[in-house]
Amino acid sequence: MATEIRERFNPDKLRIFSSRVLQGMGVPKEDADITAEMLIACDLRGVESHGIAHLGPFYVTRIRQGTITPIPRLKTSSSSPTTASMDGDKGLGFVVGYHAMNDAIDRAKQYGSGFVTVRNSSHFGAGAYYAMMALPHDMIGLALTSSWPGVVSPDGASPSVGTNPLAIAIPSGKKPPFVLDMATSVVAGGKLEIARRQEASIPKGWAVDGEGKPLTDPNKTKYGLPTGGLLPLGGKAETGGYKGFGLGVAIDILCSLLSGAGSNIFLSKLADDPGNPFNHFFGAISIGGFLPVDEFKKQMDRMTEAFESLPTVPGVEKIYLAGGPEAEIVEERKTNGIPLDERVIQTLKDLSSELNIEYELK
Amino acid sequence: MATEIRERFNPDKLRIFSSRVLQGMGVPKEDADITAEMLIACDLRGVESHGIAHLGPFYVTRIRQGTITPIPRLKTSSSSPTTASMDGDKGLGFVVGYHAMNDAIDRAKQYGSGFVTVRNSSHFGAGAYYAMMALPHDMIGLALTSSWPGVVSPDGASPSVGTNPLAIAIPSGKKPPFVLDMATSVVAGGKLEIARRQEASIPKGWAVDGEGKPLTDPNKTKYGLPTGGLLPLGGKAETGGYKGFGLGVAIDILCSLLSGAGSNIFLSKLADDPGNPFNHFFGAISIGGFLPVDEFKKQMDRMTEAFESLPTVPGVEKIYLAGGPEAEIVEERKTNGIPLDERVIQTLKDLSSELNIEYELK
Repeated sequence: MATEIRERFNPDKLRIFSSRVLQGMGVPKEDADITAEMLIACDLRGVESHGIAHLGPFYVTRIRQGTITPIPRLKTSSSSPTTASMDGDKGLGFVVGYHAMNDAIDRAKQYGSGFVTVRNSSHFGAGAYYAMMALPHDMIGLALTSSWPGVVSPDGASPSVGTNPLAIAIPSGKKPPFVLDMATSVVAGGKLEIARRQEASIPKGWAVDGEGKPLTDPNKTKYGLPTGGLLPLGGKAETGGYKGFGLGVAIDILCSLLSGAGSNIFLSKLADDPGNPFNHFFGAISIGGFLPVDEFKKQMDRMTEAFESLPTVPGVEKIYLAGGPEAEIVEERKTNGIPLDERVIQTLKDLSSELNIEYELK
Repeated sequence: MATEIRERFNPDKLRIFSSRVLQGMGVPKEDADITAEMLIACDLRGVESHGIAHLGPFYVTRIRQGTITPIPRLKTSSSSPTTASMDGDKGLGFVVGYHAMNDAIDRAKQYGSGFVTVRNSSHFGAGAYYAMMALPHDMIGLALTSSWPGVVSPDGASPSVGTNPLAIAIPSGKKPPFVLDMATSVVAGGKLEIARRQEASIPKGWAVDGEGKPLTDPNKTKYGLPTGGLLPLGGKAETGGYKGFGLGVAIDILCSLLSGAGSNIFLSKLADDPGNPFNHFFGAISIGGFLPVDEFKKQMDRMTEAFESLPTVPGVEKIYLAGGPEAEIVEERKTNGIPLDERVIQTLKDLSSELNIEYELK
């Protein structure tokens, strides 16, 4: 691997800067702060594909285009104590998701579990943040989102389901919490973006062309996605691809149908008017509803240590559970700052001059 | 594929026979009926790996060995309206699971959602049955189970997590319900059993040996599992194996830790006293808590039809959603009977003579 020295930036200053940018776009301060907090939390965890790199290209651009409403009116309806459905009014996914997840947590405090679906939202960043909002309440958190259909079924030749990620966070004691945040495709769309930037080909097994044949040229895309589609987790049928595909469909149902939006499969036919693919499903389940929290956390620590002491293949130091590596990155970046790519730094400089916001981020 | 003509049997007679066998082993009639119903439901859906083929080799044998209690005392404790935890007293997993799932459904009727964890159970057959118990109540059903650690992490060389399957069932209108029932490994252990029977090698990508290298000889096993382990869904790290592994660990946490049993990773070190790997997690979420049920079902049908009309790769007629093929098999087998392998028929004849139960199954 090439050694790359990147400039480091102060997390607090990046957060304040991001909030000011959003406020400059007409987002109320409270909502801008929520969004900035989530973006920087992503960069701190090393999930750079969903952090401040998206501030200009995704969120500012979409507010300008009118596909994100800076001051949304959120409407929630509920027909049972533990369930609710929200209309996000095309608000920033971060703000919509924050309120929906808090609603799920409040219901779980009272009844042991709570679930909120959301339709008509926008890109909500990384699901891990919402799932992790449950952790301080000694709850298991769940965050799912639907996305643009870019994944084929293992026997299909046209995209029909989103990369539809799922995030689940589970509290522990002294060890890092278990935090799984995964697309239900072999890889997330961002990996193709990286291959294109690096002018590299992509491995067989990630994507197919319009005839269902392996695609290795990351430039053969339409709307940033492979002409056929990404393969679901598991790949083709003989290696379990129907499992990843099934998970993706299940998540579309939980997000898009259970919120009243209707399946995202219909968006794939409306290329010129893509509609709104962003619907979510949030859940919280209270540990204490099953057993004493301390006992559970002790067992989480014990289990994590057992995995860490397993034999590994040569070159691998230890087996991490999901969320383990990210917890170590957070500590390092809190101390040394967040490294950013030149390309991302340039987008921040551009935002600074366009919106007349001071650029002082070190 | 070789054409194989198998004898067909009457589902009702197979069900009554199975119940009589279990009653002959000391299982109360009601519990024997529940178990028989689930076994035959599996065979009707074409899931022959979890049906009557297991009656003798699994359940009768284990009752004889004393690892399954024929008359268990189920104990449930609950600390919130929507959550509970059950001790299965090593009862038949079918009976334990049936009561736990009904408890979850009852809670969901009242509060919109319900969850029950189970420790100290036994093999519960196929998860789909429990998940599908939610369907007549217009609920989404969820059934997870932990199992014997036989799956490696993508960078590991020793098994640490079970094939830990997840089943989710979602109601529809006129189309078959969505029913996903999948191991979180590339393949379930049963696929190796079939390869051994057919004296065939297994494809690279299914399993590894004790050094983490690809295993293709299905006979290199210990306790019926590969010497290294099965690979998780996604395979090695570069094709998303950490996702399948993460799902497997999450399911162990939900089943084994949230029920108070403790992680199954510890069983892998106790080869001579394998302990009890069977813990479960059941959930039910009411559709009507989010939106009108009729509207949801209409959208499920509309979505299913859209998938069925997608272009496919050559040789594939249409894209089925999970549960679609099984729904067609049920119709055919209800009409024509359940086909059984010679080997399975012999186990039924043996049970008939051992327990003095009439063998008349056509």
